[in-house]
Amino acid sequence: MPDYDAIKKDLEGIEVEDNPKLVRQKSRDFFWYSPILKDQLENVTADLVVSPASEEEVIRTLKVAYAHGVPVTPRGSGTGNYGQAMPLSGGIILNLARMTKVKEIGPGRVVCEPGAIIADVDRQTKAHSGQELRFHPSTANTATIAGFVAGGSGGVGSINWGGLRDLGNVLRLRVVTMEAEPRVLELSAWDLQKVTHAYGTNGIITEVEMPLTVSYDWVDVLVGFDDFMGAVRFADALAHENGILVKEIAPIAAPIPFQYFSRHKQYVRPDQSVVVTMVAPHAMDAFLAFAGKMKGEIVFRADTLESLKGLPQAFELTWNHTTLRALKVDPTITYLQVQYPSPDHVAKVAEMTRLFGDEVPGHLEFMRFSGKIQCSGLPLVRFTTKERLEEIIRIHEDHGCPVFNPHRYTLEEGGMKRTDAVQLTFKKETDPKGLLNPGKMIAWENPDFDFSAGKTFLFPGLSDFAEA
Amino acid sequence: MPDYDAIKKDLEGIEVEDNPKLVRQKSRDFFWYSPILKDQLENVTADLVVSPASEEEVIRTLKVAYAHGVPVTPRGSGTGNYGQAMPLSGGIILNLARMTKVKEIGPGRVVCEPGAIIADVDRQTKAHSGQELRFHPSTANTATIAGFVAGGSGGVGSINWGGLRDLGNVLRLRVVTMEAEPRVLELSAWDLQKVTHAYGTNGIITEVEMPLTVSYDWVDVLVGFDDFMGAVRFADALAHENGILVKEIAPIAAPIPFQYFSRHKQYVRPDQSVVVTMVAPHAMDAFLAFAGKMKGEIVFRADTLESLKGLPQAFELTWNHTTLRALKVDPTITYLQVQYPSPDHVAKVAEMTRLFGDEVPGHLEFMRFSGKIQCSGLPLVRFTTKERLEEIIRIHEDHGCPVFNPHRYTLEEGGMKRTDAVQLTFKKETDPKGLLNPGKMIAWENPDFDFSAGKTFLFPGLSDFAEA
Ligand SMILES: Cc1cc2nc3c(=O)[nH]c(=O)nc-3n(C[C@H](O)[C@H](O)[C@H](O)COP(=O)(O)OP(=O)(O)OC[C@H]3O[C@@H](n4cnc5c(N)ncnc54)[C@H](O)[C@@H]3O)c2cc1C
Ligand SMILES: Cc1cc2nc3c(=O)[nH]c(=O)nc-3n(C[C@H](O)[C@H](O)[C@H](O)COP(=O)(O)OP(=O)(O)OC[C@H]3O[C@@H](n4cnc5c(N)ncnc54)[C@H](O)[C@@H]3O)c2cc1C
Repeated sequence: MPDYDAIKKDLEGIEVEDNPKLVRQKSRDFFWYSPILKDQLENVTADLVVSPASEEEVIRTLKVAYAHGVPVTPRGSGTGNYGQAMPLSGGIILNLARMTKVKEIGPGRVVCEPGAIIADVDRQTKAHSGQELRFHPSTANTATIAGFVAGGSGGVGSINWGGLRDLGNVLRLRVVTMEAEPRVLELSAWDLQKVTHAYGTNGIITEVEMPLTVSYDWVDVLVGFDDFMGAVRFADALAHENGILVKEIAPIAAPIPFQYFSRHKQYVRPDQSVVVTMVAPHAMDAFLAFAGKMKGEIVFRADTLESLKGLPQAFELTWNHTTLRALKVDPTITYLQVQYPSPDHVAKVAEMTRLFGDEVPGHLEFMRFSGKIQCSGLPLVRFTTKERLEEIIRIHEDHGCPVFNPHRYTLEEGGMKRTDAVQLTFKKETDPKGLLNPGKMIAWENPDFDFSAGKTFLFPGLSDFAEA
Repeated sequence: MPDYDAIKKDLEGIEVEDNPKLVRQKSRDFFWYSPILKDQLENVTADLVVSPASEEEVIRTLKVAYAHGVPVTPRGSGTGNYGQAMPLSGGIILNLARMTKVKEIGPGRVVCEPGAIIADVDRQTKAHSGQELRFHPSTANTATIAGFVAGGSGGVGSINWGGLRDLGNVLRLRVVTMEAEPRVLELSAWDLQKVTHAYGTNGIITEVEMPLTVSYDWVDVLVGFDDFMGAVRFADALAHENGILVKEIAPIAAPIPFQYFSRHKQYVRPDQSVVVTMVAPHAMDAFLAFAGKMKGEIVFRADTLESLKGLPQAFELTWNHTTLRALKVDPTITYLQVQYPSPDHVAKVAEMTRLFGDEVPGHLEFMRFSGKIQCSGLPLVRFTTKERLEEIIRIHEDHGCPVFNPHRYTLEEGGMKRTDAVQLTFKKETDPKGLLNPGKMIAWENPDFDFSAGKTFLFPGLSDFAEA
């Protein structure tokens, strides 16, 4: 057991918390979404929470932790769903939530501290010059920008820009290494892939530079359909319309909207599936004409309501908020993350819908994936047993729909990130003692693990990027 | 012969020109690009040029022309390539070049008069609020906005937004009808298709509302490759990168850049093919990393040159400017407009390149077409005979590459616009005497013409848009 009295002394001047109840609070994220992770991680807790106010304090903290051989798990707001921010080996939670400054805004760029809340970044860039981030998770109102870069994948806006895996969607990161004398690295272009979606295992992000796009007063619109596949076909056709600017396209199957969207249920019939969209104001005419042609019923549009009081923004019905809303009503529900590769994505969705019916109510997110429109799914699952859950996953994969398993806490088993020799070499350089968020990167813990085995990864391996 | 003295009297107060030399000048466009149209249209001329300064004067002119039964052919800057603006039956040229005002700019929208020069619109929207048009023809510095809407198809920016055929890429048009008492129609959504790319046969556009997007100081970059297919593969891969923001991607085969780009030839080797791109400043890092991985050589980048004096903007090397530059050096050259449908577009280009070699030097424009990346081509053709030109077209079509024939002056034969019953009904309402730009819409001249016959049209028929 490390000598925490000595550690606290070494950290003097930096905010530290050791009240076990408060430490436990900051040792948890949204792992409980998964009935499987819930069992596995329930008792995980750190020993100390350290909350630096500057990069200098981050460096001091890592230096001290390194000297004492104590694990460090970084944390933004702890909204991750796979226990990413949970300290499997105890030690220090490095809480970045006090470093919230937006430091610089330029045409197409913003520079911020790691703990900046995403919606705050958008508010400031919009006020400054009518700009906003290209995309954000549906947790924008609570999640941090570095937590998104280190733990997320994509979100609202990915229909236009793809995800964090795509070159150009993060511009630059400053990263502090976990060494006797921590170094500060500036990463850009290919090198970013070493740190994006690496769960903080490869260094602590202390500054983030993100690309911006133009911001609009997006109009929330819900389009109703009598059957889910009608909604899916509309979503797919809309996503292929070059000229109709939208920021979000999510078909959600009945009975989800009526049963679980408590504030919006007044607008939908029990048997109605909906497509949740966010439309640019100047695209509304074209959008409405197109929805009409596809026989969609406009059941909700925010720009004609007298008051939006009490209604969440539409994006808080989408991505993993769909799951959250269902869980609130029915705690036995869980979910999957499925990819339906183009060009057969609509047919694949139809097949899964036919096979599982209401055991796996559909929820899709349309997005650009390597330049092609396809959909990812976050379907709900009416959970019965672990065995049945594994079976549902297997059936999806047998039908050519890779599942990124949200019931695994390692990078590789979740299918999120392919680790390889380049990644390992980088970790050896930046975290030689393996103290950063231990237990999350199998390649490090168990070099004999078979990474490839035909599995699909969302974030490809680094050797894929090397100049061939 | 109409009584032009009476007509001039009726038009008193409106600017009128009847000097035959000046009238002939305003009766011509870039039809001479095509050796075939050159023969056919060489002697076409109008009798009178009328240059209204306001919508009111447009209405008065149409009223007078209707009363006298005189044909009216609208004209912007006369940069069309298919004789669109040429008065086949003489009569009046309605010159809109004096109506140039940008009337209103808002978030995502601009309203202007028909004769506004496209680059001026961009300058004003940029100065006003950092906005610009989604896409423009490479003639932006000379062409008018209504001429583009009525005679063009797409251009620089179509890689992100598609073309004029796409719902949402024109917001609203005001159109004056050719009747005893001309009416003013306001068209939006589906109805716009009646007037876009209709060569002015369905009414005179007096106001245009277009969507805007964010403007950047786009960086001109030329990437060199040893062989054309290397350039094509880079272009295709770049077009599929979600996160790298570019406005233009045009692969151009050797020897075109060295032989015909007189100002840029200093930057390329004689045997080098290039990809002409325009890159957002904040995307340069990612762009250069990506080009490096694809073994592209950065032969020109505008952001590191001391002076750009004497160099045209890169977009004036693309679209039909590629052809223009070749024609200036070698007047025997002509061109085609080819579509290479996705997902096999790269393979189709490879096959055509193999078949024709230097007889048809490649020039592609990558763009989004119904939500999918594909390429259109404006390959040069080393013209020998009409028969060989027709054969080259047939071979393309036999290989699944539709050709929009730029050697035809009618809407339908060029393959640009499918006319149908809806279109005809609209024309009967707006131009009952058939006085607007006569001779350009075969469906009107010859109702027995077989429009469909399996042909591909760029602008689909109106019945395709009707609510099914
Ligand atoms: C309701 C709900 C909806 C969601 N929707 C989305 C969505 O649309 N898209 C999406 O991608 N995700 C989504 N998520 C997952 C998660 O919210 C996002 O990834 C979010 O951006 C994480 O931010 P955070 O600040 O909460 O990070 P945390 O959960 O605190 O951390 C995430 C990971 O990043 C690491 N980390 C945090 N800060 C740093 C740092 N400074 N340096 C290095 N590593 C660091 C942590 O160790 C952890 O591994 C959702 C989750 C919930 C509960
Ligand atoms: C070098 C070169 C490059 C080009 N590049 C492109 C390109 O990138 N993309 C592209 O789409 N085209 C291109 N073109 C074709 C042409 O330049 C464009 O379509 C251009 O926008 C036409 O504008 P204009 O003002 O010259 O129209 P004009 O040639 O004057 O007119 C075009 C058509 O519109 C009609 N018209 C004009 N004004 C009105 C009005 N107010 N109401 C109704 N009808 C009207 C005319 O009768 C005519 O049929 C190119 C041409 C050249 C010579």
